[in-house]
Amino acid sequence: MKPQILCVGSGALGSYYSGILQRGGAETTLLCRSDYEVVKARGISVKSCDGDFFYKPDHVIKSVSELSYEPDFIFVFLKVLPEIDLVSIIKEAVAKKTTIVLVQNGIDIETPIQTAFPNNEIIGGLAFICCQRIDSGLIDHQDYGHIKIGTFPTGITEKGKIVQKLFEKGGIDCILTDDVIAARWEKLVWNAPFNPLSAILGGVDTKFMLEDEDCYELCEMVMKEVVKLSEANGHAVSEELVEKNLFYTKNMVPYKTSMCHDYENRRHLEVDAILGNAVRIADQLNVSVPHLKTIYTLLKQVDRKIRG
Amino acid sequence: MKPQILCVGSGALGSYYSGILQRGGAETTLLCRSDYEVVKARGISVKSCDGDFFYKPDHVIKSVSELSYEPDFIFVFLKVLPEIDLVSIIKEAVAKKTTIVLVQNGIDIETPIQTAFPNNEIIGGLAFICCQRIDSGLIDHQDYGHIKIGTFPTGITEKGKIVQKLFEKGGIDCILTDDVIAARWEKLVWNAPFNPLSAILGGVDTKFMLEDEDCYELCEMVMKEVVKLSEANGHAVSEELVEKNLFYTKNMVPYKTSMCHDYENRRHLEVDAILGNAVRIADQLNVSVPHLKTIYTLLKQVDRKIRG
Repeated sequence: MKPQILCVGSGALGSYYSGILQRGGAETTLLCRSDYEVVKARGISVKSCDGDFFYKPDHVIKSVSELSYEPDFIFVFLKVLPEIDLVSIIKEAVAKKTTIVLVQNGIDIETPIQTAFPNNEIIGGLAFICCQRIDSGLIDHQDYGHIKIGTFPTGITEKGKIVQKLFEKGGIDCILTDDVIAARWEKLVWNAPFNPLSAILGGVDTKFMLEDEDCYELCEMVMKEVVKLSEANGHAVSEELVEKNLFYTKNMVPYKTSMCHDYENRRHLEVDAILGNAVRIADQLNVSVPHLKTIYTLLKQVDRKIRG
Repeated sequence: MKPQILCVGSGALGSYYSGILQRGGAETTLLCRSDYEVVKARGISVKSCDGDFFYKPDHVIKSVSELSYEPDFIFVFLKVLPEIDLVSIIKEAVAKKTTIVLVQNGIDIETPIQTAFPNNEIIGGLAFICCQRIDSGLIDHQDYGHIKIGTFPTGITEKGKIVQKLFEKGGIDCILTDDVIAARWEKLVWNAPFNPLSAILGGVDTKFMLEDEDCYELCEMVMKEVVKLSEANGHAVSEELVEKNLFYTKNMVPYKTSMCHDYENRRHLEVDAILGNAVRIADQLNVSVPHLKTIYTLLKQVDRKIRG
């Protein structure tokens, strides 16, 4: 029997990965908000570096009350923003058997969902992809696409293996990790400097940030603080990541982060998921992260300005 | 005999204080650049909270080669920017008897002038004034106006007393200090957070910066680092200044710093004078100032963007 899934969110990630999961063998229901009419009528077109494709989700709904089955999995592709109350959005759809997969950026974002649904398995997911929503039902996938998942807080589970297979049958690489918290710290090593700074500095790319030696050093300091924090948090990532990330980013084509795009389009920023939660963990663990904290504070102000 | 002085700069400060010095009894020559024609023909009008006034400098020149006397004092009212080579600008006018008064913001800005003119007395000056240049020869003086001066590096001198008298006879308060370096640190306690943050955050006022508790705390941290640095530098300022400044600024009318105005008008920023020199002193003295350093690095990037 096909796994029955609910995909929440028809932004770039939701639109792309829902198609992958359908291709991987799942019966899909896509929960849309503003895109509902267009997606229901016309499906989703993905202009992709791996080959363009088009699909219609098996079902398109506007609210989880319309869901026609108890889902085996709920995949969440929403941004983590204070005004998005994910628990309320999915509550009605969460059955006893449901596993919740959070394909979202940030640190410690599983905890509130685990607290709300203590008897459901929670899987964290991290997408490594350059992908933009051009319009309702129209996605531009420019590069990468692999995903990393792991049951929260730790361990390899059967459900994790099913999710991995769905993605891989759908055509993308999916790494299964037994420490998704470490995977989140690992991604934060890159995200913590480049995403916020690209917005704080008014919309700049990686080249701009790394060509000035003081700014390069600031990125390095922030990265080192994240590594230190991951150790204190008991999910240590390798310090080598710092120089690797810097070297790699300095040598890649100038890149605008997703937060840079959000900033330029005056969209709300994932301040807490990316930095605020990390700073709070640092405070709890009494780890000194002054650079990270300064960046967090400034990013929070940039977001305040966007929110007007 | 009237002291003969050269005033360098016809921006807001130069235009205002040259008038004060003339009123105080000096024979004044004002060195202008772009404003030369207008100021020479029409003089300077000051719309002032203390009463509007108009004056014509005794002489208006475009280059120091036109100066008709060996000045007793050269008063410098220019911004401290890397593209402004002050030594070259005034060199020809510096006589054996000349005292150079630098009414400029920042830390350690006297050293390069002292090095270039090792046998001349250097006086540092700090202006506490809200004043804008509206147009050539037109100044809007909104608030305050007192000045603090002191011979560099320390001490009270006869020349310092003469300068004090000129300002006071001209109608403003002038405090003579025996530790102008401490006075610079003291002013930096306020300047270091508010000037840079107002620009980094894209043009915001003091209210915006202080109404968010994290941003308030960041300002506090930066101020404390400046106090710590002043101690290490041997010119300690009182730690009480931190809370005093925060309290005062939180309770005053929302205020846009001069750097905020510079940012909004895409003018080059005094990055090194306000922060860069402080950070370099911290590095030399091995004092940890991570918040200050982060703000410095970001401000440097904002300035880079303005410079295109």
